[in-house]
Amino acid sequence: MATVDRWLLPDGIEEVLPPEAACIEAARRQVLDMFQRWGYELVITPHIEFLESLLSGAGQDLDLRTFKVTDPFSGRLMGLRADITPQVARLDAHSLRREGPSRLCYAGSVLHAKPRALSTSRSPIQVGAELYGDASPASDVEVISLMLDTLELSGVADVHMDLGHVGIYRGLAQAAGLSGDAEQRLFDALQRKAVDEVDALTASIDEPLANMLRSLVELCGGREVLDLAQACLVEAPSEVHRALDELLAIADELELRYPELPLYFDLGELRGYHYHTGVVFAAFVPGMGQAIAQGGRYDDIGADFGRARPATGFSTDLKTLVTLGNMTPTAAEPAVWAPDHHDLYLWQAVQRLRREGVRVVQALPGQDAAAAREAGCDRQLQWQNGIWQVTPLAS
Amino acid sequence: MATVDRWLLPDGIEEVLPPEAACIEAARRQVLDMFQRWGYELVITPHIEFLESLLSGAGQDLDLRTFKVTDPFSGRLMGLRADITPQVARLDAHSLRREGPSRLCYAGSVLHAKPRALSTSRSPIQVGAELYGDASPASDVEVISLMLDTLELSGVADVHMDLGHVGIYRGLAQAAGLSGDAEQRLFDALQRKAVDEVDALTASIDEPLANMLRSLVELCGGREVLDLAQACLVEAPSEVHRALDELLAIADELELRYPELPLYFDLGELRGYHYHTGVVFAAFVPGMGQAIAQGGRYDDIGADFGRARPATGFSTDLKTLVTLGNMTPTAAEPAVWAPDHHDLYLWQAVQRLRREGVRVVQALPGQDAAAAREAGCDRQLQWQNGIWQVTPLAS
Repeated sequence: MATVDRWLLPDGIEEVLPPEAACIEAARRQVLDMFQRWGYELVITPHIEFLESLLSGAGQDLDLRTFKVTDPFSGRLMGLRADITPQVARLDAHSLRREGPSRLCYAGSVLHAKPRALSTSRSPIQVGAELYGDASPASDVEVISLMLDTLELSGVADVHMDLGHVGIYRGLAQAAGLSGDAEQRLFDALQRKAVDEVDALTASIDEPLANMLRSLVELCGGREVLDLAQACLVEAPSEVHRALDELLAIADELELRYPELPLYFDLGELRGYHYHTGVVFAAFVPGMGQAIAQGGRYDDIGADFGRARPATGFSTDLKTLVTLGNMTPTAAEPAVWAPDHHDLYLWQAVQRLRREGVRVVQALPGQDAAAAREAGCDRQLQWQNGIWQVTPLAS
Repeated sequence: MATVDRWLLPDGIEEVLPPEAACIEAARRQVLDMFQRWGYELVITPHIEFLESLLSGAGQDLDLRTFKVTDPFSGRLMGLRADITPQVARLDAHSLRREGPSRLCYAGSVLHAKPRALSTSRSPIQVGAELYGDASPASDVEVISLMLDTLELSGVADVHMDLGHVGIYRGLAQAAGLSGDAEQRLFDALQRKAVDEVDALTASIDEPLANMLRSLVELCGGREVLDLAQACLVEAPSEVHRALDELLAIADELELRYPELPLYFDLGELRGYHYHTGVVFAAFVPGMGQAIAQGGRYDDIGADFGRARPATGFSTDLKTLVTLGNMTPTAAEPAVWAPDHHDLYLWQAVQRLRREGVRVVQALPGQDAAAAREAGCDRQLQWQNGIWQVTPLAS
């Protein structure tokens, strides 16, 4: 391999240089501090796990996105986490085992064998928050609000939001006796709003269910969609009406809290890793086809780990937030230059300044004042009147 | 796979629950802030790279420690980073390309296919600092000092330190005409202080080189070892004397700065990933066989990426620091409990408090005062005199 080739990084894998890295670190701290102020506690999940733990209940798209390796110890197949949400659900269900609601948050790299979309990073830094133990729309509203505040904190402007509910399609499909492959094919066709396919796949289903399933393709747009849905789906099973009621309650509360936020409803939308069971939501900005933050309710994952708990949460990518939010690194405070002297008193003066929070850069042999200014120094330590003193750096 | 099995994590792979995760986050911030005060700039390196980039110049032990996966895009073999130091060297040599010295630091998970030692984590959080572009002992002293201050900051007590220099063995081995396998076998035997093997492997080497090589097994102990070495190695090639002089300069400066620090010298020691070329050092605490922090000079790695730069640095594991330093999470400030009301004024009061830095936990349907206290609240928002006010939580 030639020298030049060693520099190449795999497609979609990035390194971050100064000062952008400091920007990401600052954003990470701000976001985690905000989660903390909302009562969310930090957890750290493993980067690698046995594949069954990682993928349990999470659906095939997560499987395809997951890098696999063999554990030399156990000989078992492991996966690199491609999504932190299912890990936190496991942690809540098994390791924490709290009785009441628990609020958990995280920040960490995930790796995607295949990117979510073309030219998307395969190594996002996923940050997110999850609320367990409460099945009411209040929890969904809380995590959606936290998501919106996270975007605002990051300086992301012109956000609009999509809302959907998996229970609407699930309820209709179940009533129509669809399951397994048939349900999955219709689901895929609905996602793509492929009207002809939807018509064909519902051809053998009795009315009025077939019509209701077909109507999902059309049920997308502004707030009026919810009224339209009440009319179109009047004969739907009660599960569907419960889902509509939840969506309505969430929309009402969001409109109260964020009157300026453009809300868009899509009742045929079932995004993500297929683990969602209730409301699903995603935030978008103009000019980006991909959602910049997303989440939803996933009440069933914990069951695979011995305890089903209501669960809702959201996640986003810190790198995307920093890019979209035009976060610029706060210029580092000017530093103090320490000359290249071997002197205990100089060392003590340097350390004293650092303990006081001052950035001090120590000259290396041969470095001069030009190097000091390059290192961002505007002052220096100078031996004056028998003591090391901070003086202005001559320019 | 039974439910119970899904809970198991692979050997040496951990998850971190609250409040320990908050502790690790606090330690991470403190350490990175200290690095910043010393003039080190943060970089973020990828978790996964082409194997050649990861392993270049890094030696076989890093290879064995590295998980391998195939990139579905390029079909090429990739590795999960098991050590961040070589990545930062690449970044300095290729991506940054600065002329003068540069100081870089990092914090991030690494994964080890095989642990460094029995019952050691396979997923440490590596934090470290690297200084490029200066070949003088002043740089080594700086990174060693930063390492010692990092340990002190973390509350790790009773640290003692080992110092060695790869140039001593290298200079003697080269003069003796050893190379490749022969050099490696003798090196391994010296590391294990296997006197008989060392005698056998040096049997065909002429005096006085054979004797000098054998003496390395004995040259370990306190400061007197350096004087002894000057005597034993008097006939050694100049490279060896240069190495001894460097070791002496570093030891002198460390004794000046840290007069209480127990310093131990081992001239047969060549620890680590085999990429070191100069001084090597490691910090220990009583009762732990493994080093808790280590580093050294590795002037050659950059060459693989097109530019050889003098380099020295150290790294440690954040999880180990938190455990050894007995860092306990600072108790979260008592929070404010917000009742489960759908009221715009309540929402605005909650958000105002959060913006002021107050932690506010919102009640979920059915939660009562007991839940409030469980969530760490000592105050609540109450509707009084036509306004939402913060009042003490009745106990």
